[in-house]
Amino acid sequence: MSADQAGLCRADDERFVARLRDLLGVDAVIVEGEDLVYYGSDRCKGGWPVAPGAIALPRTVEQVQALARLCSEARVPIVPSGGRTGLTGAATATKGELVVSLERLDQILELDEPGRLLRCQAGATVEAVQDAAAAAGLAYPVDFAAKGSAQIGGSIATNAGGVKVIRHGLTRERVAGLEVVLADGERLSLGGALVKNNTGYDLRQLFIGSEGTLGLIVEVTLSLTQPPAGHEVVLCSLARDEAVLELFTRLRRSPLRLSAFECFDRACVERVVAHRGVDQAGPLDELGPMQVLIEVERGDAGDEQTSDALMELLAEAQDQGEILDAVVAQTQAQARELWAWREDISESLHVHTPHKADVAVPVREVARFMARWREAVAASVPELPALCFGHVGDGNLHLNLLRPEGMSLDEFLTRCHGFDPTMYALVREFSGSVSAEHGIGLLKRAYLGHTRSAREIDSMRAIKRIFDPQGILNPGKVF
Amino acid sequence: MSADQAGLCRADDERFVARLRDLLGVDAVIVEGEDLVYYGSDRCKGGWPVAPGAIALPRTVEQVQALARLCSEARVPIVPSGGRTGLTGAATATKGELVVSLERLDQILELDEPGRLLRCQAGATVEAVQDAAAAAGLAYPVDFAAKGSAQIGGSIATNAGGVKVIRHGLTRERVAGLEVVLADGERLSLGGALVKNNTGYDLRQLFIGSEGTLGLIVEVTLSLTQPPAGHEVVLCSLARDEAVLELFTRLRRSPLRLSAFECFDRACVERVVAHRGVDQAGPLDELGPMQVLIEVERGDAGDEQTSDALMELLAEAQDQGEILDAVVAQTQAQARELWAWREDISESLHVHTPHKADVAVPVREVARFMARWREAVAASVPELPALCFGHVGDGNLHLNLLRPEGMSLDEFLTRCHGFDPTMYALVREFSGSVSAEHGIGLLKRAYLGHTRSAREIDSMRAIKRIFDPQGILNPGKVF
Repeated sequence: MSADQAGLCRADDERFVARLRDLLGVDAVIVEGEDLVYYGSDRCKGGWPVAPGAIALPRTVEQVQALARLCSEARVPIVPSGGRTGLTGAATATKGELVVSLERLDQILELDEPGRLLRCQAGATVEAVQDAAAAAGLAYPVDFAAKGSAQIGGSIATNAGGVKVIRHGLTRERVAGLEVVLADGERLSLGGALVKNNTGYDLRQLFIGSEGTLGLIVEVTLSLTQPPAGHEVVLCSLARDEAVLELFTRLRRSPLRLSAFECFDRACVERVVAHRGVDQAGPLDELGPMQVLIEVERGDAGDEQTSDALMELLAEAQDQGEILDAVVAQTQAQARELWAWREDISESLHVHTPHKADVAVPVREVARFMARWREAVAASVPELPALCFGHVGDGNLHLNLLRPEGMSLDEFLTRCHGFDPTMYALVREFSGSVSAEHGIGLLKRAYLGHTRSAREIDSMRAIKRIFDPQGILNPGKVF
Repeated sequence: MSADQAGLCRADDERFVARLRDLLGVDAVIVEGEDLVYYGSDRCKGGWPVAPGAIALPRTVEQVQALARLCSEARVPIVPSGGRTGLTGAATATKGELVVSLERLDQILELDEPGRLLRCQAGATVEAVQDAAAAAGLAYPVDFAAKGSAQIGGSIATNAGGVKVIRHGLTRERVAGLEVVLADGERLSLGGALVKNNTGYDLRQLFIGSEGTLGLIVEVTLSLTQPPAGHEVVLCSLARDEAVLELFTRLRRSPLRLSAFECFDRACVERVVAHRGVDQAGPLDELGPMQVLIEVERGDAGDEQTSDALMELLAEAQDQGEILDAVVAQTQAQARELWAWREDISESLHVHTPHKADVAVPVREVARFMARWREAVAASVPELPALCFGHVGDGNLHLNLLRPEGMSLDEFLTRCHGFDPTMYALVREFSGSVSAEHGIGLLKRAYLGHTRSAREIDSMRAIKRIFDPQGILNPGKVF
């Protein structure tokens, strides 16, 4: 086999494919057709080719181990692939790699009620995990739009966030155990059914958020939660950006149990209205520069206290001039309607080929950062519509630039990429993160140094060499 | 300077001490007197000498960096020292190391209310952190008996557990950011005020629970919680060991918010009674083989629902024959009294020089494991009184063997150490942890392989070499 500069070979080499078919069976290896592109990339289409050498669809953990051993011996790079809903190209094959999809490893294996644990294979979707937990009267509280396609293994490899982080944390906090196949085929068992285990370094944590660069996650044990009795849902319009923080702090000081605090600016509402083809800006009488969707957990089904306390708090916030208008859902259907104003934003922007950034700043800096970002847009790319929404209770903002009608895609992307350094420099100035929840992948490698120091990046590379000395796992991703 | 087999030198070398005094000032370096022993060990007195070469008491992070650079250059090993309340010898100097105490770095630096974050220096006690959080109407929910002496840096380096893990997790889950000084004096900033930051490997997690072998934690940012309005506290006696799990599962299925679920056997109660010198076995009319202390959070100050739901659940458990007797605290003073039956156990056992083990098994295995442990004691060391208590909701049991009257300490320890392999083999059989919350230190190195695989231990050693290539940070601890 011929090797590239890094000493790595291609997965479409005939002898390699033959050996792979021997290991997995003929129907588990794809080397041609549309499936190459289907399995070969995630939802981020950047300036890179989608060019896998082959696709492997193993059925057992033993097959994953065998194919890792083969790839290690043949020096064929592997791109681990989950539901491919990622937004940074981390699951994209660009130069003949073997894409390993775990979609056939999708079994829910065990539900341990005293331990409140669910064990499953990595290819189960996040929604399948949620459903299995719900069937046992429990909840898997990590929740995001792509949950129907996203696989639990991929969600751990990218430490997925979503709309419930403020209440239940990132995916990291829900991972009790991982079974991982290393580049040389060895299987590591990291954690599991133990709540406490202080016996040296917690290696499990390295694999969470490693974007497939350290090992293949094949089985997981998740820590479930008690589902709440119900929710109160409120949509508010705010008088000014700073009121986002004032209202948030007010809620945090109250005994109310906040389970979501999402914000979106006026322009987001206008795009949702346009996309829906309606002529009304939703249930709010008056829009503000910023809207907030608040969700609070109810204590139990008949709980009036939560609702009363929330009404009182909203009235105070209105008296103080923070809130312009507020609509409280009276039914579950209304709650879904209010949520839809937040959830429909991404789809409504999609037709405008938005240039997105997923950044985080300290929560207390959210309003100041939004103001500075708007100033920077106005100074550098005033011709591009700029919209902001996000999980503001986590300090996580999704910043979007839209393509104006009549501007070519090339021209638009050139201007966006020209603005990116300014935007990421601003993130750096605020000690923020260039990737709050989407990861680095291929898309943000150039900006990794804005959030992590040179010594940290050197340490990450050294850690990768420990687990993957040949560099065959997802090469070129993250760093 | 002369070096030992590992190429390391002693901290009591005259030239080294002179240079250290130049860096820190004369009053910040101790080389003789009782303070050597005071600073040189933790609460675990094993079969090793307490023999530090010198003690350093830096006042600033810059001084910590300077002394690390000096030690790195002079190849003098460092033992990082917190409040020295550890129970495995991790903070003990045995061969002329420099003990670095951070007790002078004890400032609370900042409280960020919107982010619910507290930033402080590593030498602040856990209690000082709790107090500062409480002064802002918030809580630092990690809680354990030694909190008045234990320092926050040490509690992170050992990933402290305690009585609230079931509700708020281990210390790991509360660490938003760490400032760490590496062996060569470089300062790493890992996390901080960001809730979300998916930019490569989360190195912060490696330092949590690393027992001082990777770096010196000098500053921390902690994620605080909303304090509950109050608690319901119940002490129950159970009809049989298995009822511990039945009652636990019953509570987990209810909407009650459990904040503690602690168990202790009849022998523990008898020792507390004897230690207090009273003749009554507490408020329970009837003791069972196992007692359980339950704490549940109240929704708000006037909340009757929690209390009603708890009473109903206890009545059902009594009907089902799980509970023999139950006492519900009516006042805060009574709640403290009930808690004291659990909290006084360690002190009551202390006079019997107990041989302790801190182990964890999957929660669902707790009763089966206790039975097997008692059988093993009866078969191997029936002459030694055996007592069990623990954080049973976390699967964490503290197993104790006591010295019978008239048996010499040497004879007692010989029998205990003879039994340890049997006990730890049992832990291994249950896929348990040889150290649930106390860490490995010097005490449990021989048993690390019972919980972590050879590949994991090799990986840990390789990770240590990345951050501490000369091996000067807490050599000989963990592995």
